[in-house]
Amino acid sequence: MTLVMLANGLLMMGMAALMALIGLAYPDTRGVFLEAATLVGFAGGLSTLAVANRPRGFRRMHSFLVTGTIWITGATMGAIPLWFWQMAPVDAFFESMSGITTTGSTVMSGLDSTPRGILLWRAILQWLGGIGFIVAGIALLPILRVGGMQLFKTESSEKGDKEMATAARFAGTTLWVYAGLTVTCLAVYHAGGMTAFEALVHALTTLSTGGYSTSDASFGQFEQPFLEWAGTVFMAAGALPFAWYMKGVGRGDFRSEQVRALAVLFFVSISLITAWRVWTSGDPVFEVLRHVAFSVVSVVTTTGFATVDYTTWGPFAATAFLVLTAMGGCSGSTSGGAKMMRWLIVLRVLRIRFQRVRLPHSMDVPRYQGRAIGDDVVTGVMTFFVLYAITVFGLAVVLDLYELDMMTSFSAALTAVANVGPGIGSQIGPSGNFAGLPEGAKWWLSFGMYAGRLEMMTVYVLFTRVFWRELA
Amino acid sequence: MTLVMLANGLLMMGMAALMALIGLAYPDTRGVFLEAATLVGFAGGLSTLAVANRPRGFRRMHSFLVTGTIWITGATMGAIPLWFWQMAPVDAFFESMSGITTTGSTVMSGLDSTPRGILLWRAILQWLGGIGFIVAGIALLPILRVGGMQLFKTESSEKGDKEMATAARFAGTTLWVYAGLTVTCLAVYHAGGMTAFEALVHALTTLSTGGYSTSDASFGQFEQPFLEWAGTVFMAAGALPFAWYMKGVGRGDFRSEQVRALAVLFFVSISLITAWRVWTSGDPVFEVLRHVAFSVVSVVTTTGFATVDYTTWGPFAATAFLVLTAMGGCSGSTSGGAKMMRWLIVLRVLRIRFQRVRLPHSMDVPRYQGRAIGDDVVTGVMTFFVLYAITVFGLAVVLDLYELDMMTSFSAALTAVANVGPGIGSQIGPSGNFAGLPEGAKWWLSFGMYAGRLEMMTVYVLFTRVFWRELA
Repeated sequence: MTLVMLANGLLMMGMAALMALIGLAYPDTRGVFLEAATLVGFAGGLSTLAVANRPRGFRRMHSFLVTGTIWITGATMGAIPLWFWQMAPVDAFFESMSGITTTGSTVMSGLDSTPRGILLWRAILQWLGGIGFIVAGIALLPILRVGGMQLFKTESSEKGDKEMATAARFAGTTLWVYAGLTVTCLAVYHAGGMTAFEALVHALTTLSTGGYSTSDASFGQFEQPFLEWAGTVFMAAGALPFAWYMKGVGRGDFRSEQVRALAVLFFVSISLITAWRVWTSGDPVFEVLRHVAFSVVSVVTTTGFATVDYTTWGPFAATAFLVLTAMGGCSGSTSGGAKMMRWLIVLRVLRIRFQRVRLPHSMDVPRYQGRAIGDDVVTGVMTFFVLYAITVFGLAVVLDLYELDMMTSFSAALTAVANVGPGIGSQIGPSGNFAGLPEGAKWWLSFGMYAGRLEMMTVYVLFTRVFWRELA
Repeated sequence: MTLVMLANGLLMMGMAALMALIGLAYPDTRGVFLEAATLVGFAGGLSTLAVANRPRGFRRMHSFLVTGTIWITGATMGAIPLWFWQMAPVDAFFESMSGITTTGSTVMSGLDSTPRGILLWRAILQWLGGIGFIVAGIALLPILRVGGMQLFKTESSEKGDKEMATAARFAGTTLWVYAGLTVTCLAVYHAGGMTAFEALVHALTTLSTGGYSTSDASFGQFEQPFLEWAGTVFMAAGALPFAWYMKGVGRGDFRSEQVRALAVLFFVSISLITAWRVWTSGDPVFEVLRHVAFSVVSVVTTTGFATVDYTTWGPFAATAFLVLTAMGGCSGSTSGGAKMMRWLIVLRVLRIRFQRVRLPHSMDVPRYQGRAIGDDVVTGVMTFFVLYAITVFGLAVVLDLYELDMMTSFSAALTAVANVGPGIGSQIGPSGNFAGLPEGAKWWLSFGMYAGRLEMMTVYVLFTRVFWRELA
């Protein structure tokens, strides 16, 4: 347990430091943030000191406990400034969980007149959540064997310290790439007409594919084609595998089946929806294209920014966006959902299956990036999809009990678990927010975001008896 | 191709004979059925004679073509009396396809005053579709390796004629069990107060889990608790594996994991929905229980009879029934949907997966009926679910293009592909029908029923180029 206490303690101290900085920067919420910083810093210091000189035995199960607790701690501590400010506890927790899981569903309105400290804090939560997810993915997914991440594992037989050092260096490089992209995005946004503060907030929430904004109108507030296209590009950048940037820069090799699949998905869905929309609405092609491209990229990358309310475009568009909500970006990025790698693995398995009908004794195996996809990976991916479906449908049924209509329940469940943000319908769609939902529904959706961000398995393992027996 | 022509020819001649019998029995539709019988019999005779003395080479791919064509032929020929009677071609085809796939979605209203010949013909289509599916399942599923049916294959290495003889004997016994259950059901219905004709129609459509009735009020017309309970029992009987009856009677061994799983599903969902309904409506427990049990069994077994409109019970009930629509009965029965065996295999794989988190090098494998579930079966089941999801969501998106609302589109797609019958919502719910849908939507739903009945793979294989190249 030493390591669990230590990780959570360090996280709290880091968050306290950020809160203190915000408190110093913005006078109107200074009290709120300094009080929160004191409280969180004190708690963090205590749990770090409590285990400071204890031996740090590390067992496999501990990685689950670290990951499982760190998002809960982050969401709880992140909620404290919001709570101290003026929000109800359930709303503060929902908002903070939505931030740190990079979902972006909000219960707040009147963002345009919200203190800057609060707006920046929400954006920082998303940015932290984004980097946290990538690092957790590097450390945890191979152990879980549900992400297909083990395909990336090197064949090297060197173990132990050297492996840890590689992982640490990799995590460090990732942080630099992430920070570099964020700064670039900030510069482009600012050049395009955002104020420095708007550019900072939106850059933090774009690269993390989070989607919190400085206005109830989200990205639509700017009404600037350049900014919308820039947003489209940087949302896509946040959904690309971070390893791909490093590898590409290092070796000049940008081939990646995931990236290609994402590009194909963008191209096909944007073309189809644009064509249909131009046909049915008669609006000018380039305007439609801009809105559709922004919306599709926003939903597929699980960012959740909005410029228009596509859910008012009729049932075809609504269903298309609902399906896109389930897609996700690339594995190894900040985006949520099922992700391209898993879809590709499923399609490859399917193709071999069809081929075997014709050639029952064929020895062909499904491949990904040139490597054979083992049975272990196939059942891992299948497990993910089953847990994904169970979580979404289970959550939808529970939300129904709060007398939400079926489409609101289902799309809220899906958007939470896939960490996208907006749902379908007038209440929780791109132009609504989650404030009006019953308190119980907000707790359940917070759980959905948490389970979705940790790709289900990590969370559900914590609920099994054997896990605790093993740990004891 | 000889075998394909022969199988379709024999089917047509058999259907023509049944049409002729109905024509002779019911004077008011005599002309309709005798004309149809002449036409269908002539076509059947021609295609049989055309290949009568040709050599009957049989290749693996032919089994797909036989199964793929026979349902199209059955639906087309079955539609002819309906068309001659007074229905539009698209409606006649939809109704006939819905019958022969044992779906039970209808475009007809005013059933209470519809000629008996027509009502009986619809019921016969379902009964034929039911036995056809079981026989096709015995012959085809092992080849497809998507149903997990190969788990049942004997270990025997005897091949060829002997195996064919076993299959033929098995199919023969199945027919007797099916007929016996139908006659028993007829007798019980008649004893419970149905007229002989009503009992005949409902017995034919109960055991086939089809769901066509003699009244727009479906089973609700009788308002007799005894008949509703009898219907509940016989619908469940139709969803049990037919091999289970035979084995049980032969060896006194009724253990079956599928049957147990179905019983658990019934128990849990009926208890939960009854408790919720009693709680929210305050109606008497036993009345609620009767309606819930009937509705749950009707939907899970994919029969589709209705006594009440559960979709008016609010979002929780509607979502619960939507989820139940996707379940299905047991493999090797007449029911549609995903079926218990596949869900069990998925759950077993999941359990082992969770166990491996704790014990990464465990050699435990998932089991079904005491046998190890091979990787081949696992990917087969996964393939099924992927194709199932693609078909349902794809169909829903297409239906949206006809400007149906999202819930109507989605539930229509699901109920068609799972061969259940009623959808969700006022238009196509248990108290509505499919008559008001646009013509294009009816064609697409007919395709959905066809693809669902043949468990997707069989149909999609026919659309691959390699299939036709292999066959040429």
